[in-house]
Amino acid sequence: MPARPNIILLVMAFCLLAPGMHAEKPLVLAKQGSFFINQEDLATAFPTAAGTPQPGHVSVKGMYVQYQIPQTRNRAAYPVIMVHGSAHTGKTYEETPDGRMGWAEYFVRHGVPVYVVDHSGRARSGFDPTARAPGFTKFTNEQAWVRFRFGPQPFVPFANTQFPVKAQEEYYAQLVPNTETSLPGAGQNTIDALAKLLDRIGPAVILVHSQSGAYGIGAAIARPNLVKAVVSVEPRSCAASPADIQSVFTHVPLLTMFGDFQKGDPDWAGRMAECVATVGHIKEAHGTAENIYLPDAGIHGNSHMMMMDLNNQQLADIILAWLNRHARQ
Amino acid sequence: MPARPNIILLVMAFCLLAPGMHAEKPLVLAKQGSFFINQEDLATAFPTAAGTPQPGHVSVKGMYVQYQIPQTRNRAAYPVIMVHGSAHTGKTYEETPDGRMGWAEYFVRHGVPVYVVDHSGRARSGFDPTARAPGFTKFTNEQAWVRFRFGPQPFVPFANTQFPVKAQEEYYAQLVPNTETSLPGAGQNTIDALAKLLDRIGPAVILVHSQSGAYGIGAAIARPNLVKAVVSVEPRSCAASPADIQSVFTHVPLLTMFGDFQKGDPDWAGRMAECVATVGHIKEAHGTAENIYLPDAGIHGNSHMMMMDLNNQQLADIILAWLNRHARQ
Repeated sequence: MPARPNIILLVMAFCLLAPGMHAEKPLVLAKQGSFFINQEDLATAFPTAAGTPQPGHVSVKGMYVQYQIPQTRNRAAYPVIMVHGSAHTGKTYEETPDGRMGWAEYFVRHGVPVYVVDHSGRARSGFDPTARAPGFTKFTNEQAWVRFRFGPQPFVPFANTQFPVKAQEEYYAQLVPNTETSLPGAGQNTIDALAKLLDRIGPAVILVHSQSGAYGIGAAIARPNLVKAVVSVEPRSCAASPADIQSVFTHVPLLTMFGDFQKGDPDWAGRMAECVATVGHIKEAHGTAENIYLPDAGIHGNSHMMMMDLNNQQLADIILAWLNRHARQ
Repeated sequence: MPARPNIILLVMAFCLLAPGMHAEKPLVLAKQGSFFINQEDLATAFPTAAGTPQPGHVSVKGMYVQYQIPQTRNRAAYPVIMVHGSAHTGKTYEETPDGRMGWAEYFVRHGVPVYVVDHSGRARSGFDPTARAPGFTKFTNEQAWVRFRFGPQPFVPFANTQFPVKAQEEYYAQLVPNTETSLPGAGQNTIDALAKLLDRIGPAVILVHSQSGAYGIGAAIARPNLVKAVVSVEPRSCAASPADIQSVFTHVPLLTMFGDFQKGDPDWAGRMAECVATVGHIKEAHGTAENIYLPDAGIHGNSHMMMMDLNNQQLADIILAWLNRHARQ
């Protein structure tokens, strides 16, 4: 009976391929759109930087916000504001470099209104080209590979990396200069804009990444009654003063989450240590806080860009479940 | 009977408010996402512009593309690629400054897959901050007001303007520097990327605005069998050589469309005259081409930013009907 093994192989192949073959259900939105928040006019003598001076005003500091509201909402869930890190834009939370669904749509499909921003002063938020800024930070592909922990050196991947390294060229294309340094205020403008965004849309969760870790803390301090939780994915900073912990984080839950390959990395190990300390201080003050170090939870291979990693939906499920426990309305 | 006039006023108020109160139907998408096209790696010695040189490579020229595919498609309609103009980004086709639906979603709701781009070298497409470009073009609010014909001088509106002038601060926030001049190729990179986008998604209509008028013509010349029509909204250029008209525009339909307040404006009147001439040459060659000067069609008050004007859906309907006549699959 040589047919039997072939049938078994066929069934196995079907079971392996079926999830990928299965078309996504339609995405049903009650509303979507985009707007700016916190912009102001700046007088300038040289709007074009080159050519004849034409004094006038330019709009700066406005933060671009793109949102989607699902038709069927999870009424217990607050909206989530997603904030990218250094060198990136709101693209971070959209389709992954290898063409899978990003966190923004995944959250929307779980009934959560999502607001994705470009930092004030970057990408669709624009910047001031007339400012004589001391240069704009920009990551090379080589720097991104090592600092975001796709592998130990360019372009050698960690054996078990979850990052879709085959799509690395698609990923590099989304790295942009940090032009917000052209504006007075620089990163603080994004905190200010997040506060105004909360005033506009009401209570929400803030999900931040890397550079914007400090913006999540800052927004919670600025609007402690509107920020219902801070989810901080591999933040560069978890710094919060004892006074802020007492007045803000006793009632604003904080989740921090770190990936793999960082135990021997002084930068990342130090950053997680700071978050673990902040989590400890919040718990001592009887607030709700948790650091999830993914390898300790049995989840291996995650890079700094975990929202793009192959298991990004597994990680989104962890965040959604945590919010369902600690940030219900 | 003093009650009668009150009832009439109430009914009138209801009739005026009802269309705005009426919630939109849900938007049902088969798929959405974003990706880059045509990126390449560039060697750089100073990725951060300031600080220690760290030679490496940066990804440049990639064009950011954001797309939505409706669940219920108009099978006769080709997808539409929407390309913004100078100083703007893909935001152009999203929610209007005063919070109404933009052309991108409106087309999707009419069964048309829509691809909205940020020019290569601008906004979410990034740029090269290490290049010593001769400065980036940036429009002041005052320049935008006059050049885009919201009124005769800042900030005096034309009496019958369709532009939502009350939301002008929201509009100015979307103006960004034209950073594509930092890249070798500058605007040509967007034409190259549009050609690659057509290779990826197949036959499509290209809808361009202002600066990108030349990109619509250029993309049609680059991919004459994949561009099924060019819709050129107030293009800065309609230039096409006799050879291109003969080999391309005899079978690629061209629609150009101009708004109000430009008869006395030498810039805009000259640009429309060039389009009228190109349209005439295409018709002489037995191709399909039309220029719609909106005031001649009885539609008044439109600015250069007509996709944001109060009657933007009326104008979208004109474009959709024209495509239904001249670009059916």
